[in-house]
Amino acid sequence: MVRAEIITIGDEILYGQILDTNTQWISFELDKLGIKTIRKSSVGDSAEEITTILNESKSRADVVFITGGLGPTKDDLTKKVLADFFHCSLEMNEDALKDVTEFFLKRGRELSDINRDQALLPTKAQFIPNNQGTAPCMWFDEFGVIWISMPGVPFEMKAIMENEVIPKLISHFKTPIIYHKVIKTIGIGESYLSDLIQDWELSLPKHIKLAYLPSLGIVKLRLTAFGDDLEGLKANVEEQIALLRPMINSFIFGYEKDEIAEVVGHLLIKNKSTIAVAESCTGGHLSHQFTQISGCSEYFMGGVISYSNEIKKEILHVSDSILNKDGAVSESCVTAMAKSIREKFNTTYGMATSGIAGPTGGSIEKPVGTVWIALASEGEVITRKLQLGGNRMQNIHMTSLNSLNLIRRYLLKDLS
Amino acid sequence: MVRAEIITIGDEILYGQILDTNTQWISFELDKLGIKTIRKSSVGDSAEEITTILNESKSRADVVFITGGLGPTKDDLTKKVLADFFHCSLEMNEDALKDVTEFFLKRGRELSDINRDQALLPTKAQFIPNNQGTAPCMWFDEFGVIWISMPGVPFEMKAIMENEVIPKLISHFKTPIIYHKVIKTIGIGESYLSDLIQDWELSLPKHIKLAYLPSLGIVKLRLTAFGDDLEGLKANVEEQIALLRPMINSFIFGYEKDEIAEVVGHLLIKNKSTIAVAESCTGGHLSHQFTQISGCSEYFMGGVISYSNEIKKEILHVSDSILNKDGAVSESCVTAMAKSIREKFNTTYGMATSGIAGPTGGSIEKPVGTVWIALASEGEVITRKLQLGGNRMQNIHMTSLNSLNLIRRYLLKDLS
Repeated sequence: MVRAEIITIGDEILYGQILDTNTQWISFELDKLGIKTIRKSSVGDSAEEITTILNESKSRADVVFITGGLGPTKDDLTKKVLADFFHCSLEMNEDALKDVTEFFLKRGRELSDINRDQALLPTKAQFIPNNQGTAPCMWFDEFGVIWISMPGVPFEMKAIMENEVIPKLISHFKTPIIYHKVIKTIGIGESYLSDLIQDWELSLPKHIKLAYLPSLGIVKLRLTAFGDDLEGLKANVEEQIALLRPMINSFIFGYEKDEIAEVVGHLLIKNKSTIAVAESCTGGHLSHQFTQISGCSEYFMGGVISYSNEIKKEILHVSDSILNKDGAVSESCVTAMAKSIREKFNTTYGMATSGIAGPTGGSIEKPVGTVWIALASEGEVITRKLQLGGNRMQNIHMTSLNSLNLIRRYLLKDLS
Repeated sequence: MVRAEIITIGDEILYGQILDTNTQWISFELDKLGIKTIRKSSVGDSAEEITTILNESKSRADVVFITGGLGPTKDDLTKKVLADFFHCSLEMNEDALKDVTEFFLKRGRELSDINRDQALLPTKAQFIPNNQGTAPCMWFDEFGVIWISMPGVPFEMKAIMENEVIPKLISHFKTPIIYHKVIKTIGIGESYLSDLIQDWELSLPKHIKLAYLPSLGIVKLRLTAFGDDLEGLKANVEEQIALLRPMINSFIFGYEKDEIAEVVGHLLIKNKSTIAVAESCTGGHLSHQFTQISGCSEYFMGGVISYSNEIKKEILHVSDSILNKDGAVSESCVTAMAKSIREKFNTTYGMATSGIAGPTGGSIEKPVGTVWIALASEGEVITRKLQLGGNRMQNIHMTSLNSLNLIRRYLLKDLS
């Protein structure tokens, strides 16, 4: 097993002024390659601190990833420390200079001395191009360890990793052939899911591992197969998924990078259908889920945020008797809202939400977290009551997810 | 200067399955106390790895924070390692047992053996209560270092830090008296802001430090004053803010924990005004900003997401001639939308957005990032054109922020 360490350099991370997301991303990608992260560290913009951590890593890791400390205003601290650490000098690297010059040329800007100096690299460095910025990436093979220094800007680091570093790692370490597939579920908690699939999990072949990746309302299952033959591994994983699917089919909304709002969008397009939403407690969040997806205008016509009862009455024509007798958080109210938005926007479907997101507004009969949702179609309205237990933002988020899932299962004719 | 190290324990963090946000939060709080974080580390759920990092920290730090590895299913690994490291045994702690028993009693659940064992603590530990969960917090004073072990669940850790650990740190280390104030700005970039205030920044008294904390669309300025007398420091900081304010007054929207949507809400309440929104490119995101704030129903009546041109015509009565001649992304269109939503929802103000969020839909005249926003009031409509340069989500977010800021400055009669 190849052992990796990840080091982040920068006072702004050390003092908590920025959240470091690079380290998580790198370790997640390494895990997919079968490279085991054994330590993550952050140190400040100090030559002494950087040298100390490099010396520590030398005796523990096979590969060390270093991000940050390469910007022009950082005085290129990392490069100087690396040159000293590897007992070499900084010299102008012609490939790096060509890249940084072109970077400025393309943008019609002149190359300043500070930016020119970004092409000064330790002579032992193998230069790796950065197409997204001016800070260079460097690969060293010293002391029996591979050292990779990358800029800290996340989109630059990710592009370098994907295009350059990961292929080099695979070829250098001859990492095992690995195949991954992520199965995405909604509407079921991690422990209940694990109960449902435990027999299947226990009978997985030895070369296939399962990981649970839970987040709010969604649990991802990742299957990882190790072996010699990629096509064989793909086939093995698909066989296992074919066995798994019947056990939890209703909960699976997609695979890999599928997002729930996108999946719902594809189903609507496939059914040549359109939708509009009437939101009370979600207050725009549900519409925002739809409209985050580029191209959603094909099926998402829009909606009404009826935050006040007056708007529920005047724009959505919810009757006084419903609002007075059952209240705004009721089955009758969301039914009326869903029907009304469907007619008003002339769509195939109308979705409505109304609930108590909290922290205030709860009562004994309708505590915080009580939510009703409804989906209206031609001649039919489906409703669901939710009892959520999170804070305001979590309750809003869970209501949107439940709404999207109700639409998904309705379109798949898979409602229990 | 007190030196701190922060250690996170857990395979799920090491392999990138979860993003660690605890470490940033802790270091940010320590920075406010004048305690300097010198190293952050993550190690796996392994006794050997945890012991190694504890030994390393012993020689570097005055205080070590350890989060994670305390849950009942973790087999209480951290506690066993700590007991060995401090050469003591695990024994039932009566205070911890009382707390965990009460925690279950209050929720009407029975105390299982696994949860009972959570009250087994190293005998050298000083027990610190956790009111939010069942994993205990422990404080050790060994080898001339303070060691604080906390659960990894963020809201539990934060409550323990705020209520218990920070006061104990202040009293133990006799940290200097420090006073902070955060000034929040919107509508101005970091470098332009720094140009505007550079004379003031250079003339700050030596005991007051300035930090820039930028995020998308918002730059926070944090003033930190060190000294002996809290009231004196507060007065010093307020004096400096009084000097600063005239230079950047229009950009300051609040202080400390103020959020822009909340500030706009307070202004609307103060002016006894109400608002409704007509969203095209923001697609619900702007409404969601308003409705994230508990109590917003006092001034936020709701809105219409007019994602399609049909809805702009039929619900918001934007004329065919505007849509055909100027298009949906135009000053005339947002003007019509803002006027219409104000009338329809019978509010004091109507806000509208329309633009090209991307990645598709741009043209030479109207590239991706072209956005129009409008604010309608009695007899007047204010419009602004934005030219944004981010990805789809950033463009949506920036449009919402610009809209909130336009309302804010209009209500303050501070439009340039």
